[in-house]
Amino acid sequence: MPRWKPDAPERLQTAALELFDQQGFERTTVAEIVQRAELTQRTFFNHFADKREVLFGMSAEIQREIVGEIEAGDDTSPPFDVVVRALEVVADRMFESRRAAVARRYAVIAANPELLERELGKNAALTEAIADALHTRCGDPETAFLAAGAAVLAQQAAFRQWTRPGETRTLSELMQDAVRALHTTVSPAAWQRSDR
Amino acid sequence: MPRWKPDAPERLQTAALELFDQQGFERTTVAEIVQRAELTQRTFFNHFADKREVLFGMSAEIQREIVGEIEAGDDTSPPFDVVVRALEVVADRMFESRRAAVARRYAVIAANPELLERELGKNAALTEAIADALHTRCGDPETAFLAAGAAVLAQQAAFRQWTRPGETRTLSELMQDAVRALHTTVSPAAWQRSDR
Repeated sequence: MPRWKPDAPERLQTAALELFDQQGFERTTVAEIVQRAELTQRTFFNHFADKREVLFGMSAEIQREIVGEIEAGDDTSPPFDVVVRALEVVADRMFESRRAAVARRYAVIAANPELLERELGKNAALTEAIADALHTRCGDPETAFLAAGAAVLAQQAAFRQWTRPGETRTLSELMQDAVRALHTTVSPAAWQRSDR
Repeated sequence: MPRWKPDAPERLQTAALELFDQQGFERTTVAEIVQRAELTQRTFFNHFADKREVLFGMSAEIQREIVGEIEAGDDTSPPFDVVVRALEVVADRMFESRRAAVARRYAVIAANPELLERELGKNAALTEAIADALHTRCGDPETAFLAAGAAVLAQQAAFRQWTRPGETRTLSELMQDAVRALHTTVSPAAWQRSDR
C-alpha cells in the first residue's frame, strides 16, 4: 500500500481527469483512478463522495471565494465593476496556475450531456449567489441580476479563449478584453432604433 | 370516453400545469392529467412522450422560430440588435397571449431542481443555436457568443418582471427596458479603471 501523500486530492484529480479524457467519464472506475494515482480507495473516499465530485468538488469553494470578494469590495464602485474585479481576483488565485487541468476538466464535461447540465446548474447557482451578494450592496435587484449575468457571460467568453491551445494571455487579461467586447456589443447603436 | 377535441394539447397542458402547481410535479400522474382534461391516456401519449414533455415540448419550436427570425433578419443590423429583435418578434407571437400559463410553467420548474437543470440545459442550447446562426451572418465567433448571451440575459430579466403579479407591460416592452438597463450596467465607467 502506498504511503500517505500530502497532495492526495490533487493527485486523484489529475489521474481522474487523464482517465476521463482518455476513455470517457462513464467508463472510468474509482479503482482505476486510485491505481493510476498510486493511492487507495479509502483515500479517494476520504476526499470525494464519488467520481463526479472529482469534477465538481471545488465549485462550492470557488463560489465562496467570489462572494467573499464581492462582500469585501469597494462600496463606491458600480456593481458590474465589483463582480468583474472579484472574478479576476479569483481567476488569478484559483485558476491561472492550473490552465491545463481546468481545460481538461471542461473538455470532459462538454462531452457528457448529464455532466454539462450539472455544470450549467452550478453556473446558474453561482450567478444567483453573485446577484444576491450584489443586491445586498446595491439595493436594486434588476441591476444586481444584470451585473451578475453580464460579468459571468464575459468570464465565459474569456474562459473559452483561455483554454484554447496556444493562448498565453492570463484569464484576467482575457476577462478585461471580453468586458470591453461586451460593452461594444450591447452599445446604443444596437438598440436605439428610430422606428420604435 | 370523451369525443375528439381539436385543442387537446393545450387542454392537456393547462390541466397538467394546474396539477403540477397544486400538488407538485413528482406527485402528479398522467392518469390525473387526462382525467382533469377530460381526455384519454391515448390522446396524451399521441402528443407527449411523458409528463415532462408537457413542460419542455415547445422548446424545439421556440428555438426554430427564433433562429428563423435571425436568419431572416436585416443583414446590415449589428448582431445584438438582430437577436433582440428576433426575441421580441417571437415573444409577441408565442408568449404574449399566454402570460398566466408561462408564469405557472416557470413556477413549477423553479420548484424542482431536476426540472430546473433541464431548463438551464435548454436555455444554453438556445443560446448556442442563436450564436451559431449569428456566427454564420457576422463571421466573428466571440461577438456572436456575447451578442447571443447578452440578449438572452436581457430576455431573462424581462421575463422575470413580466411574470410578476400585476405587471401589465408586454414582454417586448420589458425586453427593451432590460436592454437599456444592461447597456447602462456594463457602461465604461464600470470597467475603465485608472489603476490598471
